[in-house]
Amino acid sequence: ELAENRGAVATVIRSVGTSVHRMPHTGGMSIGGKTAGIPAVALANADADILAYQLSLGEPVSLSLHSTARFLPSEMSANVIGEITGSDKPDEVVILAAHLDSWDLGTGAIDDGAGVAIVSAATRVLLDMGIRPRRTIRVVLFANEEFGLSGALAYAKAYAGTVDKHVIGMEADFGAGSVWQVSSGVAESALPIIDVLHQLLAPLGIERGDNESGGGADLMPLRAAGMPVLGLTQDGTHYFDYHHTPDDTLDKIDPAALTQNVAAYAVSAYIAAMTDHDFGRLDVSGNGGWQRDCEKPPKRD
Amino acid sequence: ELAENRGAVATVIRSVGTSVHRMPHTGGMSIGGKTAGIPAVALANADADILAYQLSLGEPVSLSLHSTARFLPSEMSANVIGEITGSDKPDEVVILAAHLDSWDLGTGAIDDGAGVAIVSAATRVLLDMGIRPRRTIRVVLFANEEFGLSGALAYAKAYAGTVDKHVIGMEADFGAGSVWQVSSGVAESALPIIDVLHQLLAPLGIERGDNESGGGADLMPLRAAGMPVLGLTQDGTHYFDYHHTPDDTLDKIDPAALTQNVAAYAVSAYIAAMTDHDFGRLDVSGNGGWQRDCEKPPKRD
Repeated sequence: ELAENRGAVATVIRSVGTSVHRMPHTGGMSIGGKTAGIPAVALANADADILAYQLSLGEPVSLSLHSTARFLPSEMSANVIGEITGSDKPDEVVILAAHLDSWDLGTGAIDDGAGVAIVSAATRVLLDMGIRPRRTIRVVLFANEEFGLSGALAYAKAYAGTVDKHVIGMEADFGAGSVWQVSSGVAESALPIIDVLHQLLAPLGIERGDNESGGGADLMPLRAAGMPVLGLTQDGTHYFDYHHTPDDTLDKIDPAALTQNVAAYAVSAYIAAMTDHDFGRLDVSGNGGWQRDCEKPPKRD
Repeated sequence: ELAENRGAVATVIRSVGTSVHRMPHTGGMSIGGKTAGIPAVALANADADILAYQLSLGEPVSLSLHSTARFLPSEMSANVIGEITGSDKPDEVVILAAHLDSWDLGTGAIDDGAGVAIVSAATRVLLDMGIRPRRTIRVVLFANEEFGLSGALAYAKAYAGTVDKHVIGMEADFGAGSVWQVSSGVAESALPIIDVLHQLLAPLGIERGDNESGGGADLMPLRAAGMPVLGLTQDGTHYFDYHHTPDDTLDKIDPAALTQNVAAYAVSAYIAAMTDHDFGRLDVSGNGGWQRDCEKPPKRD
């Protein structure tokens, strides 16, 4: 905005990803919640190096910018929802979430094809084992996470009347690295259940985290309405090597790590759907500004 | 050619490089020495994976091809030559070679900016040490290696009358990995000098190779005319991760490895220029078909 007001015709930044390869790491650009008025592009690190060197010479540098990025009109999309209806308490719901859309440069294998695969396969594992959960396990594959959580907002709106029956939610949206920690965002009274869950997850190499989990971008509207969340934190060492670059492709996924995720989600969903206890409700009186941001949800990079 | 004769409109291959990143590894395509008549493109491995999967489904697959590659008219270019004139035997020349051009997708940092830096810096080291070689050390930075060795052919033609005075040549054209081996292509009688040279290079971690060195693409015409060659073989572990891709950029070069190369070339040039011995001449009677190929030199990928 400062640049724009001073007459800039475009903003060019160094990619904020961790890739050393010649691909830009891209994302949305906004100014105080509004889409920027001038084009904004990210340079791959190698190209930013060259530009920085040229600028360091003290002479004027001319940069020719050709971008094919553009805004297209909105199209109708849909959340995809499937569930195993609970036996004892079918109206109580455990949410397993991921999102269907991806950033356009890559194929979306890690963001969020992996998440879709993990939560779908975790549910499949329970079905194949012949398990009938007491609570309903609902897989929600959200539409349009990337451009404003519209699927998440639509779901929260559609289920506003029964949001109290959403006993806990968990979302896989950080690639396919192994889960290394289980954290939570539950009522204090429910922490002993998380302890029990952790004991079951520990053989998978999963540590115990805190109670500050955010739960995933698509779960923010439900969390803001009080739904507790579980966070199965994945190893993100290489996530930002590939995230939102053309390099987000299937060959970057380690099947063994994907399988470990499936196991962790299956166990977590099972415990959440089988326990006699619930996870309380989150205090929504001071929910981190979400209400203010809800119409323009905070953009996950 | 087979594909073309059967009505193909283009050839699409999987990149033959080692990069797992979403960049094609490209090169020239020829058919029996002629440029292919139909477009030829290389897919990045990740894209080739997707295409192979789609084809495996048994249904017709449609591929939309958009390539900006094209042939432009030839332009005049030039070899860049510098030398330290020898004191005792100024007419006897030791060649240090690299090439100035690069493949267009990258910036040419490893192919062959590194080589240009190595041979230039090696000569600079000798100058800075106040060394006046007995033979002339000539740095030749060749034009147009990539599209047919035209700089190398022009040099060989211009110096055809004094090719016997080119006592040995060495070219740096395999990136900036550390030199791990010294090989040679010299007369049998000269192998003891290579042994002595190896003793001096060994502290740099350099092993002794055989006497089958090719000497580098730009040196092929001179080698075919009998000039002996020295091969300082670089570690190519990562060379084909970057070679002829957009990823051939300066950040991929390890300065420590580059420095080791400079040391190896400086020592080798020094010995070659100072020794009382020469390296013989190569037998040019059966030189691997080079004479036949000389008008259309074999294309280095």
